[in-house]
Amino acid sequence: MSRVEELSLLAENVGETVLIRGRVHRVRVKGKAGFIVLRKGMETLQACIFAKDPDDSISKEVLQQLKGLTLETVIELIGVVNKTPRPVLTCSVKDVEIAIREVKVLSPATPQLPLLVEDASRSDKEIERLIEQAKKKGKDEATVVVVTKPTRLDNRVIDLRTPANQAIFRIQSGVCRFFREYLIGEGFTEIHSPKIIGGASEGGCDVFKLDYFGSEACLAQSPQLYKQAAICADMKRVFEIGPVFRAEHSHTHRHLCEFTGLDFEMEIEEDYHEILTLYHNLFLHIFKGLNTVFAKELKAVDEQYPFEPFVFTEKPVIISFPEGVKMLREAGYEQADEEDLAAEQEKALGRLVKEKFGTDFYMLDKFPMAVRPFYTMPDPENPKYSNSYDIFMRGQEITSGAQRIHVQKLLAECALKKGVTPESLGAYFDNFAYGCPPHGGAGIGLERVVMLFLDLPNCQMTSFFCRTPTRLAP
Amino acid sequence: MSRVEELSLLAENVGETVLIRGRVHRVRVKGKAGFIVLRKGMETLQACIFAKDPDDSISKEVLQQLKGLTLETVIELIGVVNKTPRPVLTCSVKDVEIAIREVKVLSPATPQLPLLVEDASRSDKEIERLIEQAKKKGKDEATVVVVTKPTRLDNRVIDLRTPANQAIFRIQSGVCRFFREYLIGEGFTEIHSPKIIGGASEGGCDVFKLDYFGSEACLAQSPQLYKQAAICADMKRVFEIGPVFRAEHSHTHRHLCEFTGLDFEMEIEEDYHEILTLYHNLFLHIFKGLNTVFAKELKAVDEQYPFEPFVFTEKPVIISFPEGVKMLREAGYEQADEEDLAAEQEKALGRLVKEKFGTDFYMLDKFPMAVRPFYTMPDPENPKYSNSYDIFMRGQEITSGAQRIHVQKLLAECALKKGVTPESLGAYFDNFAYGCPPHGGAGIGLERVVMLFLDLPNCQMTSFFCRTPTRLAP
Repeated sequence: MSRVEELSLLAENVGETVLIRGRVHRVRVKGKAGFIVLRKGMETLQACIFAKDPDDSISKEVLQQLKGLTLETVIELIGVVNKTPRPVLTCSVKDVEIAIREVKVLSPATPQLPLLVEDASRSDKEIERLIEQAKKKGKDEATVVVVTKPTRLDNRVIDLRTPANQAIFRIQSGVCRFFREYLIGEGFTEIHSPKIIGGASEGGCDVFKLDYFGSEACLAQSPQLYKQAAICADMKRVFEIGPVFRAEHSHTHRHLCEFTGLDFEMEIEEDYHEILTLYHNLFLHIFKGLNTVFAKELKAVDEQYPFEPFVFTEKPVIISFPEGVKMLREAGYEQADEEDLAAEQEKALGRLVKEKFGTDFYMLDKFPMAVRPFYTMPDPENPKYSNSYDIFMRGQEITSGAQRIHVQKLLAECALKKGVTPESLGAYFDNFAYGCPPHGGAGIGLERVVMLFLDLPNCQMTSFFCRTPTRLAP
Repeated sequence: MSRVEELSLLAENVGETVLIRGRVHRVRVKGKAGFIVLRKGMETLQACIFAKDPDDSISKEVLQQLKGLTLETVIELIGVVNKTPRPVLTCSVKDVEIAIREVKVLSPATPQLPLLVEDASRSDKEIERLIEQAKKKGKDEATVVVVTKPTRLDNRVIDLRTPANQAIFRIQSGVCRFFREYLIGEGFTEIHSPKIIGGASEGGCDVFKLDYFGSEACLAQSPQLYKQAAICADMKRVFEIGPVFRAEHSHTHRHLCEFTGLDFEMEIEEDYHEILTLYHNLFLHIFKGLNTVFAKELKAVDEQYPFEPFVFTEKPVIISFPEGVKMLREAGYEQADEEDLAAEQEKALGRLVKEKFGTDFYMLDKFPMAVRPFYTMPDPENPKYSNSYDIFMRGQEITSGAQRIHVQKLLAECALKKGVTPESLGAYFDNFAYGCPPHGGAGIGLERVVMLFLDLPNCQMTSFFCRTPTRLAP
């Protein structure tokens, strides 16, 4: 008897007795017939049993057992794989079903579930259809269960069982896998920088403070200092995937108080555009990897949250900040020369770039020095601008990055210009006294990349267990 | 003119003009001759220039420039690759040297360095030799510089530049790479669990507390709760590499207040020994990967910190706790039946196992229930013991792991036996009300694995920037 892991391949086992572990997604007993819809990962399968005559004691026993099964109970089902006479419309596996021989309960679920996976799996369109149906039947539309975001997040362990969520977190895992795969191939070394640090990593506000054996410490808002320390320590090319903490009172769709940072930092040989070239190829590797390896998962997300496939070009689309400003103005948007883009302008520029270049992925280069931190390398040809960039997916920023100043004297000058004293910088400043090669990098929010690739409305959907100003549990 | 990245391959470029970026490791000008030892990663290379006649103005200018070079300055050196008449004993590259044409300073270092990479790179044996030499010459042995641990850690950005440290962190990166590579191949999904949590993850003590927008929160002491939540959420097999926080007042060689956890958790199909089999194969993949891909790095560590190669067997060596107790007693050690092993017993058992089985890597299975947490699955055949294990490298524990209880009723009983009320467990307990497949896993300390593979004396050496009760910086 073989154990089946992949329900979608079950047609290969027709006629065989198999063992399948899964959850009770639906269950129904009607007279002498019993039906279970078994759910496993993103798939569902029908299983049934019929008591044919009064002596059929085993089947009767199983039917009795089915009556006691609660939804979401983990069971092991033993039975024979049969072709179905008609496609099973209500299951993802349509061509075969199981004739149940035996059911074993591994872990029972309470009958009082806070939400049903079936309800949580519906698309907006399906919900509308059900509401229409209810209205036609003269029922109140409130009879159609709509699972709210708080219910989902409060009971995340059930919410995560929907096919779309199963898919989202496999895709998230894929992004990390392709990110590292590419960088390791390019000679990068992975680092693990400390998250508890002595001072605030970027300015003093928006940090979580904690007591460290009687000293004040805080949680790192970015691995910036340590990525640069790695370069200063001759590690040449480094990356880190790790948590990033921001005590921001932001309640937007794209802010989290704890998110996963995909960070890299690299030596520059001749020109900081080497970083942008690497960045582009890195993301091409990620996008192509997702489209190839996770096609089934993309489809599962699309079924509940329909989205336009993410488009990108083989060659990088790099637009200078002044060009971007010009494009916005020509399209009727207001944008100052040396101000950062507001959310509206960001989205508008994304649309304009997509129209002109046919890509959801582009780079805005040469940001005004006025809107970048002091450690950003000024553009040697025009110090009003800088060797820095933001990178966008579907018109929303996923990265700020830059060439950093690697010469201590210049760093002191640039800090003072922004009103920062070198003394206040501590180790960050001191490191540059020991020599440091030219370098730059970027930090990318994993949850944003997944959200924007899938065109989902909120980062909380792509965070495993999200943290917001009002959510610390579960 | 080609840019050279790998100094050990420079012999291929004899006769060519090349550009090499690196650091001034040593520099000397004597009359009309100038010498630089250039350091790049783990390698050093000699470069020289001679002013041959009074008109040789370019060479003179370079000689003048060499006089002003400080150690650790980042330079780019342009010159011709020549074979050396005799091997250069003081450099790692012995067969070729560079005839300098041009030197460009990219980032100057201060002349007041807190330590020299050359001093920090010596093995104990070399230091002894130098002390002997000093004594013979009638000098004070204090003229031989010995770089202390605090000096190293205070100036980690320089300390990390030694060949051994360059190697250690490439090896650390390799451990993570092989860990993930193997698990992804086995169908695992990577997760990123929150590090800021509402309650203490394991008991109430030894946690770092912080203020979370007015609520009390703490830093996760392990991703345990969330790994299990992932299994409960049907993710089947998951892993995480991330920071783990322990506010322990431990000042031992193997404790850190922040370390990198290599965690995995998986569904069990029939028996929890599936976890041990996977674990063994996973670590075989890591050990073999290190020995193959990082041979050069292992040699570099061995040069400064000589070690016996790590030995392991193709088949897992699994010893039950009672067997281990018996082995210890037979060898004259005291060990109670239901008490955990003390450090001395751990090391002794490691020696005994190595003698008997010829491995530095083994598993101690079936720990007494008395010394394991309440959520550990009791051994169904003998409830005095449990389905849990520790795993050792060179006689030191790198992992505690177990099958976890997946049925809420049993969990409540076992918690109460240990004086823990189910109510106090919050979400951890509630999750099991929604059904959960049988599962187990392990959490491994990355810094310990690297320390023990290389037989280094302290975890602080394998932590990028370590955190101990007395160290929060840099």
